[in-house]
Amino acid sequence: MHLSERIIGLTGGGSDGWDIYRKARALKSEGVAVVELTIGEHDRRTEPEILDAMYAAARGGHTGYPALPGTDGLRKTVAARVADRTGVPTTRDNVVIVPGGQAGLFAAHIATCDPGDTALFIDPYYATYPGTIRGTGAVAAPVLARAENGFQPDPADIEAVAPDARSLLINSPNNPTGVVYTQSTLTDIARVAAAHDLWLISDEVYDTQIWDGTHLSPRQLPEAADRTLVIGSLSKSHAMTGSRLGWIVGPEEAIGHLINLTTHTTYGVPGFIQDAGEFALSLGIAFEEQIAAPFRRRHAAASAQLRQHGLPVVPSTASMYLMVDIRATGLSGEAFAHRLLDDHRIAVMPGESFGLAAKGHLRIALTVADDLLTQALDTLATLYTTLTEAAA
Amino acid sequence: MHLSERIIGLTGGGSDGWDIYRKARALKSEGVAVVELTIGEHDRRTEPEILDAMYAAARGGHTGYPALPGTDGLRKTVAARVADRTGVPTTRDNVVIVPGGQAGLFAAHIATCDPGDTALFIDPYYATYPGTIRGTGAVAAPVLARAENGFQPDPADIEAVAPDARSLLINSPNNPTGVVYTQSTLTDIARVAAAHDLWLISDEVYDTQIWDGTHLSPRQLPEAADRTLVIGSLSKSHAMTGSRLGWIVGPEEAIGHLINLTTHTTYGVPGFIQDAGEFALSLGIAFEEQIAAPFRRRHAAASAQLRQHGLPVVPSTASMYLMVDIRATGLSGEAFAHRLLDDHRIAVMPGESFGLAAKGHLRIALTVADDLLTQALDTLATLYTTLTEAAA
Repeated sequence: MHLSERIIGLTGGGSDGWDIYRKARALKSEGVAVVELTIGEHDRRTEPEILDAMYAAARGGHTGYPALPGTDGLRKTVAARVADRTGVPTTRDNVVIVPGGQAGLFAAHIATCDPGDTALFIDPYYATYPGTIRGTGAVAAPVLARAENGFQPDPADIEAVAPDARSLLINSPNNPTGVVYTQSTLTDIARVAAAHDLWLISDEVYDTQIWDGTHLSPRQLPEAADRTLVIGSLSKSHAMTGSRLGWIVGPEEAIGHLINLTTHTTYGVPGFIQDAGEFALSLGIAFEEQIAAPFRRRHAAASAQLRQHGLPVVPSTASMYLMVDIRATGLSGEAFAHRLLDDHRIAVMPGESFGLAAKGHLRIALTVADDLLTQALDTLATLYTTLTEAAA
Repeated sequence: MHLSERIIGLTGGGSDGWDIYRKARALKSEGVAVVELTIGEHDRRTEPEILDAMYAAARGGHTGYPALPGTDGLRKTVAARVADRTGVPTTRDNVVIVPGGQAGLFAAHIATCDPGDTALFIDPYYATYPGTIRGTGAVAAPVLARAENGFQPDPADIEAVAPDARSLLINSPNNPTGVVYTQSTLTDIARVAAAHDLWLISDEVYDTQIWDGTHLSPRQLPEAADRTLVIGSLSKSHAMTGSRLGWIVGPEEAIGHLINLTTHTTYGVPGFIQDAGEFALSLGIAFEEQIAAPFRRRHAAASAQLRQHGLPVVPSTASMYLMVDIRATGLSGEAFAHRLLDDHRIAVMPGESFGLAAKGHLRIALTVADDLLTQALDTLATLYTTLTEAAA
């Protein structure tokens, strides 16, 4: 039977970028001990008190069809949080609750792009971006943010393709690089978006993982405020990856249509999960810092450790990842990652999984206990040195 | 800012069909007592033991990113259930778990239709169908199932539009009519689908609410087996509307692509909800009959009561709804429903909310306690009689 071209072509015809991850999981299921530094999953579970709040809400009867825009309580809480963090006036009517950041990305592209429209995204990118756009029937077009520019996108590159585009998806703090876009980068992006009437879809799910400096949302910039849809989530900030709870914040009119869309795509998010999310947000910044602390610590320690070994670490100030440049080995990121997994049972993501701009790099997720991480990085660095010397 | 045409046009330009529902809710929020016979929501909460299973799974640590196709356990349980109920061999690889039936409908259309392709659906229809199709970028085209045919679709009507279509969405047992498609109807549909290479998307979420006869899925028919995607859900069968848990069952190749799609649309369903669903299914048929029992009872009693009043009830053998024909009053379903709500504080859905074919009808959800229902139906019948006599 004929399936749609868009679903057959979702991953662009090639690998979906998750080969190493699957290989590591297969080894583990065979009983092989693998150090997994692949996906952005905390090495802790969701906090029991959040699960208790969920259970209390469910047993209290919040088990029927959920309020489709999200509960009043959660929408107001998210609005207050966003207003607090950004200084931009935000009310319930600027917020729609969605089942996770990924659902938010998908919905935002449906709301802004018709089939055949061009949706831009910055490369390197989180692995689902191009498939997300293709799934909506829009055309996914990357804009390279080059390693030599510290992975900051160059506004001229966006300018070059903006006239034919409808939207631009950005992600700062960035996965996979850990780079935070500078005020100058974001101001330039806002200017180009305004000049070419682009929507900005701003994936800000790592906004509580900034280790130096502050977070700037394009919604804070006057030229971009009315053309920005911000994607947020509790996955990273509250170790709630498995609860699938996120939101889109944007102009009231767009949010109104997005609420209508939820009726037709997901029919809302379980009420008891929304109540758990509201409770989680009520725990405040101290709790968020507690969730972020291991990554803050490991990011600093791992950077220092790898640099000491002479390994070029991409300068970054955020996220639960570290990116390293292994081009001096003469290997691709993929070849290096397979070698590291095959010979040393350590799994990292090849830069190629995140686009063209990060080829010859590795993304290391800082998601195992400190001592295990230190050990694995020593092994990785030794392999790097051996290969680099052989290539010299 | 320019929003996409598809999101602006999601409801086809007119009302989304939920005016009465919203009006009733607004009255209730003002403290007015309204008998709500609108949406298909059980008058009971999700069973505590199911919520306990969810909580145990969550506290047991199933809180990380979920298995994207669904957990092995739930996929196998759904496969075994479907095989049991239909006799069609079904394995885990024929099943993808989705966050509710609505998400399944949306995903099935993305998998089968490219933007611009025509997706057929039978009218009367569940209110989200056309918007769901429009949201994917496909073209929504209704096929009328006429009141004078007992709301069974006529294969000749499908035949007439099938050559230009890619898929046909059917729903038996049907919402809003409560009609179960006959074996002859389904065989004809399967034949037309095979002749024109259509996908059948079969929404079977009411398959545990059949009060007479048996359920037949097109997947049981040889011509349709390889071209059918079945949408299932625990919402109606297990009173788990708020858990947002459903599935798509179909050919392995299609399911493989649909799994890939989930990575880009929802990123899976919370693991603890999947575990709760697996537990709920383990409760077996006795539990499902317990959930269905009030609707079985009310369906029979309400039919008899309304017929006694001389009100033409659409003959039906299934579902938590009853449809009545109020054309003798000279009013539209909408006008009657507004009158009933304004004058008597009883909310029912106008047939017009479900398409053209059910105009001049009302859908009554049997979702309040028996005595309250009896009272409300007496009032409705009295209004019907008064209006009919005035119109005569």
